[in-house]
Amino acid sequence: MAETRPEERLALIRENLAEFLNPEILEKIVNEGRNPKVYWGTATTGRPHAGYLVPAIKIAQLLAAGCEVTILLADIHGFLDNLKAPIELVANRAEYYRFVIAALLKAMGVSIDRLRFVLGSSYQKSPEYVMDLYKMCSLVSEHDAKRAGAEVVKQSDNAPLSGLLYPALQVLDEQYLDVDAQLGGMDQRKLFVAATEWLPKLGYKQRAHLINTMVPGLQGSKMSSSDENSKIDLLDPADLVLKKVKKAFAAPKEVEGNGVLALIEYVLLPVSLLKTGERKFVVERERDGLEPLVYTEISKLHEDYRNEVLTPQLVKPAVAKGLNEILAPIQAEFQASKEWQDITEKAYPPPPPPAKKKKEKKDKGTMHPGNKNKPQQQNAQPDGVKAEAGGEQPQPDGAAELPVR
Amino acid sequence: MAETRPEERLALIRENLAEFLNPEILEKIVNEGRNPKVYWGTATTGRPHAGYLVPAIKIAQLLAAGCEVTILLADIHGFLDNLKAPIELVANRAEYYRFVIAALLKAMGVSIDRLRFVLGSSYQKSPEYVMDLYKMCSLVSEHDAKRAGAEVVKQSDNAPLSGLLYPALQVLDEQYLDVDAQLGGMDQRKLFVAATEWLPKLGYKQRAHLINTMVPGLQGSKMSSSDENSKIDLLDPADLVLKKVKKAFAAPKEVEGNGVLALIEYVLLPVSLLKTGERKFVVERERDGLEPLVYTEISKLHEDYRNEVLTPQLVKPAVAKGLNEILAPIQAEFQASKEWQDITEKAYPPPPPPAKKKKEKKDKGTMHPGNKNKPQQQNAQPDGVKAEAGGEQPQPDGAAELPVR
Repeated sequence: MAETRPEERLALIRENLAEFLNPEILEKIVNEGRNPKVYWGTATTGRPHAGYLVPAIKIAQLLAAGCEVTILLADIHGFLDNLKAPIELVANRAEYYRFVIAALLKAMGVSIDRLRFVLGSSYQKSPEYVMDLYKMCSLVSEHDAKRAGAEVVKQSDNAPLSGLLYPALQVLDEQYLDVDAQLGGMDQRKLFVAATEWLPKLGYKQRAHLINTMVPGLQGSKMSSSDENSKIDLLDPADLVLKKVKKAFAAPKEVEGNGVLALIEYVLLPVSLLKTGERKFVVERERDGLEPLVYTEISKLHEDYRNEVLTPQLVKPAVAKGLNEILAPIQAEFQASKEWQDITEKAYPPPPPPAKKKKEKKDKGTMHPGNKNKPQQQNAQPDGVKAEAGGEQPQPDGAAELPVR
Repeated sequence: MAETRPEERLALIRENLAEFLNPEILEKIVNEGRNPKVYWGTATTGRPHAGYLVPAIKIAQLLAAGCEVTILLADIHGFLDNLKAPIELVANRAEYYRFVIAALLKAMGVSIDRLRFVLGSSYQKSPEYVMDLYKMCSLVSEHDAKRAGAEVVKQSDNAPLSGLLYPALQVLDEQYLDVDAQLGGMDQRKLFVAATEWLPKLGYKQRAHLINTMVPGLQGSKMSSSDENSKIDLLDPADLVLKKVKKAFAAPKEVEGNGVLALIEYVLLPVSLLKTGERKFVVERERDGLEPLVYTEISKLHEDYRNEVLTPQLVKPAVAKGLNEILAPIQAEFQASKEWQDITEKAYPPPPPPAKKKKEKKDKGTMHPGNKNKPQQQNAQPDGVKAEAGGEQPQPDGAAELPVR
């Protein structure tokens, strides 16, 4: 599905956005029959997980609306996030991201002809970029840099200096990736506003900014995100996805902060629209001898959930099924690609076996729910690598499962 | 004069230093009969003035001690200091600095065979340097960066971000200029200590640091430094130098904070030693029909000054004479070099004539002493350019006449 009428293209671009800064920039381009250029960035650290579905569906919508989308694979940021990791590991991770993001977007039913990947290292060390970085640092105050990064970078006196530098880098990326707009999460809002102020200081044009809603994670926002096993990896097999969704945080009758319902609203219904031309989410009730519930609007689903027509027990298997339908073609592509499999092994080598069993237990921390029957770790991370990737910047606590942009 | 015995080489390296951090690094090199490599940096902004004599004599001593000296012409810093200036102006200023510093060192009686100039822009935009800068910013905290730059960079919430970046840049310069030691003023001490801590974080070796005493300026430390006309330019003619020295701040009987006596101690006596093999400073008293006073030790001169044997009226002409003896060969070289003259015109073009006479007066500010008979400005600066150069970093208030390193 690719829209061609300006109003429908713009509707797709706007869909589900929390905010759209300087929309006139893209409106003009679309109304002139041209293709807006949009970028989204992610630091190549841990394996992309289900949290990536939220920016991915937005990117899929942008592609369907005829935008030219650049994915910035911020490998330098990934490297800086874990300086102990060898540089080859970071290169392999960027490759892994490229495979998984391309497959994810195809799985959402869009063409990736207008998608390109750019490695941060391909230009963020160039003399022109660096000179502009020096210039920007001379024109931007410490106060303004802090304000811009307030919700993206951990800020304290003891935080590394790089946190103050990241906003300037991300702003410059808009110019060097030659785009009309940047996409990101609501936590990027201050940085996006700064971008509209800082680029003109260097004589560069303002960009539009597409801001995604912050969607609650599957573990809810209160729980520690340190339990890697409850995160859904995009290569998790169907039964494991079902298991993890069943363990997800979803209070009965509560719609707010419900990560399971958020997946329906922000991923499954939009994907259905992209793939089939209509929004549709089906909840089977065979076991109870009842007809399936079919939703085409999130409002009706929320109503049923509040009234307990729809319970966590009913909705979870349906969400797992929807997720698995998205993941199935990704995993088929993975199984068919020796290259991708090899890169995965090099990008995320299995951790060395623990020296003592006792110590392994201790490392999980007191918050660990302690799933004794857990399957072989698929998304095991080497020490020091955070799995909560999804943004160029390090994640603040509490937003760990959400992609930043 | 070039020393060859290790103990004499080391004595020259140490002479008049306020402090010498990690001296064992240079001692080992000298004791092995090798030549230590030392760097001193300066941002290429306003015209070098008499304040440059203090680092210059130290550099002359290092050359005489057989050191290989690198002068970093920090043109990027010069550019960032005045972003409005065209880039060609900055390039011409770096050329001007090269001419004047080389001539100044020759005028102090040393060979410049082991002197080299390096432009900051020749490596501070290279991918390797930039990647190391990114790394260092990930390893150094905001707090530590602030502490390191506390006395070198203006610090406030509204200060530009570049101030936090400068210490990291200056520390990396030690590695990229491939030196064993860095020379600078006492205001650099915290930064130098940081350098010994930060370089090993990147796997680079610690360097030694030679710290010059902060010498009071000719205008004293209390007066505003905004009066460009009272600064002695290295190309000022002899009568103008005499005039400016006569106007210099030198309280009778007061030795502390006396910029005129400091010039004798830190410049004229050491230059005499380098050029003639003995320290000697002569004060003529012909007018009073008395024998000249001849000093070989600063302590005796201080004693006479405290007792008013030596008065400001007596000492100032002698200091002017000493200065003019240093400046004469520099000016002769300038007169003989068409190339240097051309560069001067391009580097420091005369300011456009003021539109209104009234406005010109106003621009000088209320602190301007208003010298109505002042000669044609030789060291006139275009708007926005500070004349108080001498350090890679912008100068904190009150230390404006002193070179930073």
